[in-house]
Amino acid sequence: MRATFMYGAGDVRVENAPDPVIQQPTDAVVRVVLSCVCGSDLWPYKSMPAGEQGRPMGHEFLGVVEETGADVTGVKRGDMVVAPFTYCDNTCDYCRKGLHSSCRNGGRYGWDGVDGGQGEAVRVPQATGTLVKLPVGEDSELLPSLLSLSDVLGTGHHGAVTAGVTRGDSVLVIGDGAVGLSAVLAAKRLGAEQIVLMGRHTARTDLGRDFGATDVVAERGEEGIARVRDLTGSRGAERVIEAVGTEQALQAAFGSVTDGGAISRLGVPQYELGPIGPAMIMRNITLTGGVSPARAYIEELLPDVLDGTLAPGRLFDRAVGLDEVPDGYRAMADREALKVLIRP
Amino acid sequence: MRATFMYGAGDVRVENAPDPVIQQPTDAVVRVVLSCVCGSDLWPYKSMPAGEQGRPMGHEFLGVVEETGADVTGVKRGDMVVAPFTYCDNTCDYCRKGLHSSCRNGGRYGWDGVDGGQGEAVRVPQATGTLVKLPVGEDSELLPSLLSLSDVLGTGHHGAVTAGVTRGDSVLVIGDGAVGLSAVLAAKRLGAEQIVLMGRHTARTDLGRDFGATDVVAERGEEGIARVRDLTGSRGAERVIEAVGTEQALQAAFGSVTDGGAISRLGVPQYELGPIGPAMIMRNITLTGGVSPARAYIEELLPDVLDGTLAPGRLFDRAVGLDEVPDGYRAMADREALKVLIRP
Repeated sequence: MRATFMYGAGDVRVENAPDPVIQQPTDAVVRVVLSCVCGSDLWPYKSMPAGEQGRPMGHEFLGVVEETGADVTGVKRGDMVVAPFTYCDNTCDYCRKGLHSSCRNGGRYGWDGVDGGQGEAVRVPQATGTLVKLPVGEDSELLPSLLSLSDVLGTGHHGAVTAGVTRGDSVLVIGDGAVGLSAVLAAKRLGAEQIVLMGRHTARTDLGRDFGATDVVAERGEEGIARVRDLTGSRGAERVIEAVGTEQALQAAFGSVTDGGAISRLGVPQYELGPIGPAMIMRNITLTGGVSPARAYIEELLPDVLDGTLAPGRLFDRAVGLDEVPDGYRAMADREALKVLIRP
Repeated sequence: MRATFMYGAGDVRVENAPDPVIQQPTDAVVRVVLSCVCGSDLWPYKSMPAGEQGRPMGHEFLGVVEETGADVTGVKRGDMVVAPFTYCDNTCDYCRKGLHSSCRNGGRYGWDGVDGGQGEAVRVPQATGTLVKLPVGEDSELLPSLLSLSDVLGTGHHGAVTAGVTRGDSVLVIGDGAVGLSAVLAAKRLGAEQIVLMGRHTARTDLGRDFGATDVVAERGEEGIARVRDLTGSRGAERVIEAVGTEQALQAAFGSVTDGGAISRLGVPQYELGPIGPAMIMRNITLTGGVSPARAYIEELLPDVLDGTLAPGRLFDRAVGLDEVPDGYRAMADREALKVLIRP
């Protein structure tokens, strides 16, 4: 098959790779119908040291089951399925409490001999626990929105859930990337009354308004914090979803949250140490969030995607074939595209 | 009146001070029946720069109302009352959501012209919102336990609540001081199944066992973390209450908490920066807690103190008169005493 590999910063190649085959009785092989590029793929795209060995890329995909191992139940050859961005057994103690991202038998696509999602097919470990059947055909117009269940929609939802968003809350979302915009969708769905979106790219913040943002703050730093405080009656936002990962975004979060409020981080932190000294204690700020247990949320979010209540497929503003994937990375890194769909 | 002042590290004096009088119509004057020394008083006792001006000390007290301003309702002359360790109006937006520690009209005893609690009397601002009437007399044996509603019991309870302790949880309490032991009481009350107490002072950890600790870990550092993991089936504790405030205690908390678990901090951090990088995100750890909104919890905890279900008065292992307060500070700083009661 053809699949995507990264050899270093800026060096993405589409190459021949062995066709996936069942290796364990718990495996399934899925032919990929749709995949995409993740914002988190851009971190190695900017910083990965060059090497001889390519890393298989991609962790978001949906497709058709081609083959299943002897122990796989629940899905069968021919089923349309979506895969959450980490695989999991859905039965261990962590999975049972909804933390599939820490599954004892789980792992990441593209690591430990598992294929990446940006290719023609994927061997999916722990297929029974991982794959969720979709009640649509290969030609459904809903496929891009359904693909978002793999990662970005569930990640935004995780931010809203861990921040504790409930009906009537004022919510600040920091970052107008695909995760931030998904967090807007999720906060709206959970009943937030005010959703302030902090971002500077008009096309993206306009989509954010369509998704439910009530206010947009283009300013950064102290100026941005002051704007948020103006918009929230001086108190600050009760729930902050930080979808960037930089120190500057974290400072904006601490500056904008109300006393007793919560900051949920979704972006992978680009720092090791952060400001959690006495001021955080005096103000009773909670710092929460993390890698989304995407599998935990699929059943809950699926009906709203199927009936069109949520249309996260609008996040994809460019589509490429496999051979154009390297240009898709470039377009996202250059902010030409918000999120790039891949049709292998 | 006589009252306690600190002039610098190790320099505590009991001196004459003006008798408190009503200054605002919302004030009350309370004659102090019981007060005590707080673990947080030991930080300035160890580090305060010497100066000409003494700082009024003490923020935990109960006593009898002597006089009330024209606007005070709910309490009257002769009532026995307990004061939470920050005063508050109990009506502002923060108070209404239970965050009395951030009250818009609140403040701290010993600051801004308000008396400290370690003296014969206190002018209490915002008396209507602050003071809670106690249905006991001056001679009640319950007074030491009732005094703990002012701070230490509510603080332990705040740790358990913010950490999310619910029935069946495994909880780790780091620190065998009065706050840690109160957190044990609170976790037990909320239904924790396993309560591991990390501390090295046998007399204190023995009291912790009486309060509900199921296990005691005397080891520190990596050894302590390994012991906690042994005791919690390798996964770690679901809820960690960190009642020390040092970097070492925070490291123990991160090392001992399970993926998806919560760390609630009660000790004032003796650091500005902490380890909140990618590892925290990958493991979905929540960092929460803070200064207790003690006023919020008094009505909830009071019945359990009155009927003896909770006996936090056992935390006081030494009692002194006003003139002996300096020696009370010394005894607590030298770890001769766990918590010192003051009978003015």
